[in-house]
Amino acid sequence: MLLAKVRGTVVSTCKEPTLSGVKFLLVQLLNEAGELLPEYEVAADVVGAGNGEWVLISRGSGARQHEGYFERPLDATIVAIVDTVSLDGGNLYSKREDFS
Amino acid sequence: MLLAKVRGTVVSTCKEPTLSGVKFLLVQLLNEAGELLPEYEVAADVVGAGNGEWVLISRGSGARQHEGYFERPLDATIVAIVDTVSLDGGNLYSKREDFS
Amino acid sequence: MLLAKVRGTVVSTCKEPTLSGVKFLLVQLLNEAGELLPEYEVAADVVGAGNGEWVLISRGSGARQHEGYFERPLDATIVAIVDTVSLDGGNLYSKREDFS
Amino acid sequence: MLLAKVRGTVVSTCKEPTLSGVKFLLVQLLNEAGELLPEYEVAADVVGAGNGEWVLISRGSGARQHEGYFERPLDATIVAIVDTVSLDGGNLYSKREDFS
Amino acid sequence: MLLAKVRGTVVSTCKEPTLSGVKFLLVQLLNEAGELLPEYEVAADVVGAGNGEWVLISRGSGARQHEGYFERPLDATIVAIVDTVSLDGGNLYSKREDFS
Repeated sequence: MLLAKVRGTVVSTCKEPTLSGVKFLLVQLLNEAGELLPEYEVAADVVGAGNGEWVLISRGSGARQHEGYFERPLDATIVAIVDTVSLDGGNLYSKREDFS
Repeated sequence: MLLAKVRGTVVSTCKEPTLSGVKFLLVQLLNEAGELLPEYEVAADVVGAGNGEWVLISRGSGARQHEGYFERPLDATIVAIVDTVSLDGGNLYSKREDFS
Repeated sequence: MLLAKVRGTVVSTCKEPTLSGVKFLLVQLLNEAGELLPEYEVAADVVGAGNGEWVLISRGSGARQHEGYFERPLDATIVAIVDTVSLDGGNLYSKREDFS
Repeated sequence: MLLAKVRGTVVSTCKEPTLSGVKFLLVQLLNEAGELLPEYEVAADVVGAGNGEWVLISRGSGARQHEGYFERPLDATIVAIVDTVSLDGGNLYSKREDFS
Repeated sequence: MLLAKVRGTVVSTCKEPTLSGVKFLLVQLLNEAGELLPEYEVAADVVGAGNGEWVLISRGSGARQHEGYFERPLDATIVAIVDTVSLDGGNLYSKREDFS
């Protein structure tokens, strides 16, 4: 999985039928120092992530391992909202501090 | 999924038998600012996308999660036509404005 | 799928048993302007592609969606010989012109 | 598989339900000379890896080929703790020396 | 598949249980001119490849399409030892010459 930050939303009315009701968020990937990378993903959201939050995304067939998602044409899903990231014994990110 | 822009068509008469009737569009990937990236895909179209439109493409096994496509040798499919992309609270793309 | 040009052949006598009888071609990827990229693939050929021809390759599990190929250890297959590629309303490639 | 070094931990309380009880470690990829690459992964740990250890990670659907993990939305897993890496007849890494 | 050269071995005693008995070789990828690329893989060996030999590796789920390997957490496997590679009508590599 990769760390990413929620930055926006993608809306589509004309889409593959089984994608009805799937929420698409635009998330930008983060490097291991917590900085935004140029790479992004449009990911399905199954955890209710909000703008600005750090999340974990799963890509490939891993993105469909969720009840009701196994046969939907998705290749990226937000599978967790990150609380804390620790690195080399220090604290890289803490949601409580970021959002308080 | 990634954002891409429809730019062309690929035609082939000699192909793997199960690909008969599949429409191949050449789509060029977009970055999170809506600019064309050097990367492209030749993607199957299951939503009737038109030239110049922004679309979402799904790659890998996700590209085959569509009725009748599960056992076709495809690794990229256009799964949605994009209406709007919002980023950091602003509006990055709106199909209505782009095509009016 | 990606556009590629057939440039050579790879021969192996000592290989995983189920690969017996599979023809391996060396294909070099093309960018959306039809220029050779540094990236290549050794791909199974199921359409009878010839040297110099433009082809479509499918990678990942998509490479095995062909009768008799589902359980062979392949991750790249030539699935179509390209006739024409049109881009932005113009003609990028036409097999007839290239081979006449 | 790729070589990586364990550098940290990612904690999440709000996550896809089947990820409960999965331990997420932040591992940074190593090149073939044993130097840290800019690329990292947040990987599930099924072998009990510790901070600073060299590990092998498996990505994609390979990350879920473990009892109880087949239908969890994961795309990266630590599948081995590395004892030694030999390269061109020499010894690139030995866990005994590194941790003694 | 990609061309790679066998350069070393990775040994691990603490690993995912189904990986017992799998031999891991460190192979470095080659470009289409036969030069070493910075990219490597730690690949399972099912063909008995030796140091310095050119091989074909299959990655992703293709790496597990081998008897007894379907549910092992692997994402890269050596599936063939290369005898010859021909490119643009010339001979890029011949095992007989390289090892005589």
